[in-house]
Amino acid sequence: MAVPPPTRPRCLLPLSLGLFQGALLLFFTFFITYDKPLVQKEDATVVADQFHGILPFFQDIQVMLAVGLGLLLAFLPRYGLSALTHNFLLLNFSTQWALVLQGLLHHFHHSQVHLDLRSLLTAEFAAVTVLISVGAILGRTSPCQLLVVAACEVPIYLASEWAVVTHLGVLDVGGTITIHVFACYFGLGVSKALFGAERQPVHPKESPSPPSDLLSLVGMLILWVFWPSFVAVLCQPGDAQHHAILNTLLAMSASAVTTVVASSLLERDGKLSPSHLQNGSLAGGVAIGAVADMAVPPVAALALGSLSALVCVLGFRFLTPLLARKLALQDQCGIHNLHGLPGILGAAASVVAILVVPEDTSRSHYSPVSPIGGNTSEVVGGQWGDRGAGRQALCQAAGLAVAVGGSLLAGLLTGAVLRLPCLARPPEQLCFDDSLYFRIQDQARSPGPGNTAEEGALALKDRV
Amino acid sequence: MAVPPPTRPRCLLPLSLGLFQGALLLFFTFFITYDKPLVQKEDATVVADQFHGILPFFQDIQVMLAVGLGLLLAFLPRYGLSALTHNFLLLNFSTQWALVLQGLLHHFHHSQVHLDLRSLLTAEFAAVTVLISVGAILGRTSPCQLLVVAACEVPIYLASEWAVVTHLGVLDVGGTITIHVFACYFGLGVSKALFGAERQPVHPKESPSPPSDLLSLVGMLILWVFWPSFVAVLCQPGDAQHHAILNTLLAMSASAVTTVVASSLLERDGKLSPSHLQNGSLAGGVAIGAVADMAVPPVAALALGSLSALVCVLGFRFLTPLLARKLALQDQCGIHNLHGLPGILGAAASVVAILVVPEDTSRSHYSPVSPIGGNTSEVVGGQWGDRGAGRQALCQAAGLAVAVGGSLLAGLLTGAVLRLPCLARPPEQLCFDDSLYFRIQDQARSPGPGNTAEEGALALKDRV
Amino acid sequence: MAVPPPTRPRCLLPLSLGLFQGALLLFFTFFITYDKPLVQKEDATVVADQFHGILPFFQDIQVMLAVGLGLLLAFLPRYGLSALTHNFLLLNFSTQWALVLQGLLHHFHHSQVHLDLRSLLTAEFAAVTVLISVGAILGRTSPCQLLVVAACEVPIYLASEWAVVTHLGVLDVGGTITIHVFACYFGLGVSKALFGAERQPVHPKESPSPPSDLLSLVGMLILWVFWPSFVAVLCQPGDAQHHAILNTLLAMSASAVTTVVASSLLERDGKLSPSHLQNGSLAGGVAIGAVADMAVPPVAALALGSLSALVCVLGFRFLTPLLARKLALQDQCGIHNLHGLPGILGAAASVVAILVVPEDTSRSHYSPVSPIGGNTSEVVGGQWGDRGAGRQALCQAAGLAVAVGGSLLAGLLTGAVLRLPCLARPPEQLCFDDSLYFRIQDQARSPGPGNTAEEGALALKDRV
Repeated sequence: MAVPPPTRPRCLLPLSLGLFQGALLLFFTFFITYDKPLVQKEDATVVADQFHGILPFFQDIQVMLAVGLGLLLAFLPRYGLSALTHNFLLLNFSTQWALVLQGLLHHFHHSQVHLDLRSLLTAEFAAVTVLISVGAILGRTSPCQLLVVAACEVPIYLASEWAVVTHLGVLDVGGTITIHVFACYFGLGVSKALFGAERQPVHPKESPSPPSDLLSLVGMLILWVFWPSFVAVLCQPGDAQHHAILNTLLAMSASAVTTVVASSLLERDGKLSPSHLQNGSLAGGVAIGAVADMAVPPVAALALGSLSALVCVLGFRFLTPLLARKLALQDQCGIHNLHGLPGILGAAASVVAILVVPEDTSRSHYSPVSPIGGNTSEVVGGQWGDRGAGRQALCQAAGLAVAVGGSLLAGLLTGAVLRLPCLARPPEQLCFDDSLYFRIQDQARSPGPGNTAEEGALALKDRV
Repeated sequence: MAVPPPTRPRCLLPLSLGLFQGALLLFFTFFITYDKPLVQKEDATVVADQFHGILPFFQDIQVMLAVGLGLLLAFLPRYGLSALTHNFLLLNFSTQWALVLQGLLHHFHHSQVHLDLRSLLTAEFAAVTVLISVGAILGRTSPCQLLVVAACEVPIYLASEWAVVTHLGVLDVGGTITIHVFACYFGLGVSKALFGAERQPVHPKESPSPPSDLLSLVGMLILWVFWPSFVAVLCQPGDAQHHAILNTLLAMSASAVTTVVASSLLERDGKLSPSHLQNGSLAGGVAIGAVADMAVPPVAALALGSLSALVCVLGFRFLTPLLARKLALQDQCGIHNLHGLPGILGAAASVVAILVVPEDTSRSHYSPVSPIGGNTSEVVGGQWGDRGAGRQALCQAAGLAVAVGGSLLAGLLTGAVLRLPCLARPPEQLCFDDSLYFRIQDQARSPGPGNTAEEGALALKDRV
Repeated sequence: MAVPPPTRPRCLLPLSLGLFQGALLLFFTFFITYDKPLVQKEDATVVADQFHGILPFFQDIQVMLAVGLGLLLAFLPRYGLSALTHNFLLLNFSTQWALVLQGLLHHFHHSQVHLDLRSLLTAEFAAVTVLISVGAILGRTSPCQLLVVAACEVPIYLASEWAVVTHLGVLDVGGTITIHVFACYFGLGVSKALFGAERQPVHPKESPSPPSDLLSLVGMLILWVFWPSFVAVLCQPGDAQHHAILNTLLAMSASAVTTVVASSLLERDGKLSPSHLQNGSLAGGVAIGAVADMAVPPVAALALGSLSALVCVLGFRFLTPLLARKLALQDQCGIHNLHGLPGILGAAASVVAILVVPEDTSRSHYSPVSPIGGNTSEVVGGQWGDRGAGRQALCQAAGLAVAVGGSLLAGLLTGAVLRLPCLARPPEQLCFDDSLYFRIQDQARSPGPGNTAEEGALALKDRV
C-alpha cells in the first residue's frame, strides 16, 4: 500500500487558511465590536430575553451541525475521520467567512458593526448550505477544493437569500427554499462541472460497512431530535414558534415511519436500506420548513412528512441511478433526495397553504436573516403583509425558481473553478481514504492483504 | 453463509404500517386541530410559559429515547443497526398510536381535540413502555411482532395508567410504577408466552464485543445525563420540580458508584461486567421516580440510588440465571433487573416516605397524564389531597399490585398473539443478525470463515 | 494470551469505595438537607429564577463531562471501556467527595448545610480537575490509584481555589487558572512522582486506531459544542454572560481553524494528526476562561483562540517529546498542551486585558465557588472592586503562580502516595488493555495471534 506522496504542494491548504485567519483578525480589529451595554434597564431586559430566546436553539443547531451532520457523513468505513473533520472545518471557516461578508455589507450602511448571537446564527445558516452542498462530492475532493466551494458559496447564498427573502418576500422560516433547495442544486452544479461527463466508476471503498452505517444512523438520530430547533429558531416567539415546533415534530415522526414502509417495499426481500433510513427520516424536516409557522392543521404536517419521505426513498431507488446513467451526475450522499426533492415539495406545499389557509388567521414572522447588529425585530405584519394570497403564492414559486436556477448556475461556475490545476483532485485510488489526509500509524497497513488498518495495528501489538 | 430467504411474506410489515399511516392521516384530518391562538394576552402568556417550561425537558427526553436508549440496546455486535432502527420505529409508531387512542378517548367528551406539546409528551410516555418491554425479546423477534406488541401495549398502558393514577390516586411523578414496573412485567409476560417452556440455547451472536459494549456504555451515559428531565418534566414548576431534579441527580450518582462496588465484588478477579455498568448506573433513576418530588431528605435519594443499583447487579448475577433455569424465562436485556426490581423498590420507598414524612410539608403535583388538550393545570392540593397518609400508602401498594398483575396478564395474552403463524419468528440461525433486516453488501460476507463483514468488505477493497 | 491473575487483592477497590459510600450516607443523614420551601412568594421566584438560570448550563456540563470527555479519552483502541468507565466513576466519586468536604467546611459556620443545584455544580467543578489530571497517567494506572488521586486532589483544589479566588481575588470566571492550570500541573506532578526517572517504553497498544480516533473526535465535538456553557455558567446573568458565551464561541471557532493550519504545516506531507485536532480545537476554550466576561473586543477572543491552538499543536509536536526525553515526563493525553500552555496563555491574556481595558467599563461577576448553601449572590462591584488595574493584574499573576506551584508540589506528593505497595500498578504488558478491568468473553481471545477479541468472537460465531 506504499503510495507515492502526491506531487502537488501540500502547503496550499494551511497557507490559504492561515492567510484567511490573519485577514479575519484584521477585519475584526477594525470593524467589529460588541453591543454597548445598555443603560436603560428595560432595553437590557429585551436584549436579554432575545438572547435567552435564541441561545438554547442555537446550541441545538451547533450539536446538529458539528456532531449530527458529521456523524451522518461518516458512513464510509475508511473515510470517517475525513468526513467528520472536513465537516467541522467547513462549518467554522464558512461561519467566519459569512461573518466577514455580512460585516462588509452592513458596513456600507453603518460605521461600526455590532456582533451578537443572532448574527452568529445567520452566519451559521450560510455555513449550513456549504455543508449540504459538499455532500455531493464527498470523498473525491481535497480539503482545498472544499474550501474553494465554501468561499464561493457563502457570498452567493447571501445574495440568493437577499433576493428570495428580502426582495421577493418569500415565506420560508425553516430555510426549505433558501437553504436546502439552494444548497442542493449548488452542490449538484459543482459536482457536474467538476466531474464532467466522465462517469465515476464504483469505488471499492465507497460502500458502507455495518459499523459505519451505525455511526451514520446515530448522526441521523441526533439531527432528527434537534431538527425542530433548526426550523423554529427564527420564528416569532409565541404561537408561531409553538406551531413550528409541533409541525416539525409531526412531520419528522411521519417521515420516520413512512421511510420504513417505502424502503421495505422497494428493497429485495423486504429488507431495509440503511441509506434510506439515514436520509428519509429527515426528509420531513426539510419539507416542513416553508410552512412550519403557517396556520396549517396538524394533518398537513403529517402528510407532508410522509410524502417527503416517500419522495426521498423513491429518489434514492430510481432517480439517483437514472441521473448517474443519463447525466453522469455524481451525488455521493444523495443530497438531491434529501434536500432537493423534499425542498421542492415543501415549496409547493407553501404555495398550496397560502392559497388555501384563510386570510384572517393572524400569522407573523421575523425576517430569517438580518445583517450583523441590524434591527432584528421587524415583524412582517398580518399574514403576508398587504399582498393577496395569490400574489404571495406567485412569489413563493418565483423564489423557488430563483433559488434553483441561481444555485445551479453558480454551482456550475464554482465546479469549473475546482478544475484549476492548482486544486488537483485526489488520485482515484486514494479517494474515500482517511490515510490521504491523516497521519495514521503506517506500520498498521503492512501485514498483507485482507487485513485492515485496525487489525494490522492490533495484530502487531499482540505480537509484542 | 448463503441463507435461503425466509418464506413468509415480507410485505406484511410495510403493508400494515402503511395502512396505519393512512388511517392516522384520516383520523387527524377529522378530529385533531391545534389550539386556537388566544386573544387574551394574559392567557397567551400562560400557555407560552407552559410550553417553554416543557420544551427543554421534552427535547431531553427525545434524546434519551431516540439516541440514548437506541445505543444502549446496541450491545450486540451484529445487531446494532436493527436495535437502533427498531427502537426508532417503535418510538414513532407507538407515539402516533397513543395520540390516536388519546384522541379517541377525549373525543367522547369534547367534539374537537386540540394537540399541544403536553399531549405529545404523554403519548411519548406510552411509547416508553413499549421500548422497555421489547428489551426482553430483543433479537429473536421480527419487526412485525414488535409492532404487534406496540399495538397491544399502548391501549393497555393507557388503561393501567388511568387505573393507577386517576382512579387510585397513586403518586408517581417519574413513572416508576406506571411506566417502569408496568413495562417490565408486560415484557416478561410477552417473553414467557412467546417462547413458552422451551429454554433458548445460548446463541453464538448473543454475546457483546468490546466495541458494541462501548457504544452501549455511551447510550447509558446519555440516558444517565438526561434522566432528571424525564423524572421532573411533569412536576409542578417550583420547589417540587427542583427537588425532583436534585433527588434524581443524587440517586443516579449513588447508583453509578454502587454499581462499580457491586459488580467488582461479584465478578471473578474483581473485574467489572459491562452489562452491570450499562444497567446498574441507571437503576437509581428508575427507583427515584415515585418519591422524587416528595419532601424526602437528600440522604434518602442517595440511599435509594445505592440500594437499587445493588439490587440491579444482584439481579443480573443471580436472579436472571435462576429465572432462565427454573422458569425458562428469556430476558435478553435484563429489563427485570433495571426496571422491575428497582421499580418495586421505588414503590416501596414511596410507601415508606408517605408514612414517615410529616403531613404538613406542602407538596403538590400535576397529574402525570392528561388527555389531549385537556385542562392540564389541575393541581392536587395539600400533600395527598384529603386522604390520610395510611390510606395513601395503601393506594401506592394497590397501584403496584395493579401494575404488576395487569401487565403480566396482558403481556401473556400479547405473547400468545405473537405465536400466530402469520407472525413467524426469525429462524434461530438468523437471530441477532442485522443481515436479516438490512441490505448489507453481500460480497462482504464471502471471504471465508473467521472474517467479519467489515473485514471482508475492507479486504476486498484493499485488493483493488 | 493467558495472563496470570494479578496477585494483589482485587477487593481493595470495591471495599474502599463501599466504605466511602457508607460514610457518605452517614454524613448526609446528619448534616445535609434541602432548602426549606420559601414562604415569601417573591423569594421563591428569585430562587426559581436562579435554578432555571443554572439548570440548562448544568446539564450541558454533565454532557461534556460524562459523554464528551469520556469519548475524548477513548482514543486507545483497546482501552475504550476503561477510559469511559474510569472517567464516569471518578466524576461521581469526586463530586460526592467534594460535596462532603464543602459540607464540612460550611458546617463550621452554620449548623445545617443546604444542598442546591449550585453546590452540586461547584462540587462538579472540583471533579473536573480530577478528570483532567488523570489524563497524564491514563492507561498505566489502576482504578484504585485513580481514586487515591481523586481523594487527594479534591481537598487541595478546594484550598487552592480559596487561595486564588477568595483570598487573592483573581478574576477567572471560566476556570482557566483555578481549574485547567491547577489540574494540569497536579497531574504532571503525579505522573513524575509515580513513574520517577524511568522512561516508559512505547507500548504496542498505545497508539490509536482510526475507529478509536473517530470516537475521540466525536468526544471533542461534544466538548466543543457545549464549552460556552462551562465558561458562562457562573457569570452574572446579563451582559457579562452574553459576552462570555460570544467570546467562547469566537475563540473556539478560531481554534478549530488554526489547529488545522498548524497541524497541516507541522506534519509530514501536510497531513493532519488526529490528536492535534482532538486537543487543539478545544484550546481556545481553555484560554478564554479568564477573560471571557471582561469587556474585551471580539478580535481579542479570536486572537486568543488562534494563539492557544497554535501553542497546543506546537506543544504536541515539540514540547511533549522534549519533556519525555529530558525529564522522563509521561503525559499520556497531552494535558500539558491542552490545559497547561493555553491556561498560562489565558492567564497572561487576563493580565493584559486588565491593564488595557479602560477602567470605567462596568463589569461584575459572581464569585466562582461558594460553599454549600452559602449566599451566592454576592457581586463584586465595579470592575475589580476598589483595586486599581495594576494591583489586579499583579493578583492574576500571583494567582497563576500559586496554582502552578501548589498543584505541582501537591501532585508530586500524591504521586509518591501512589507508589505505596498496596496500590500496585498494572503490569506493563496489561497496560492500555480493557481485559484487565472488564469481564470480556474469554473464548474471544483464543484463535491465535493476529486476531483481536472482536474478530475472534465473531469468527467463533460464524462457525456455528
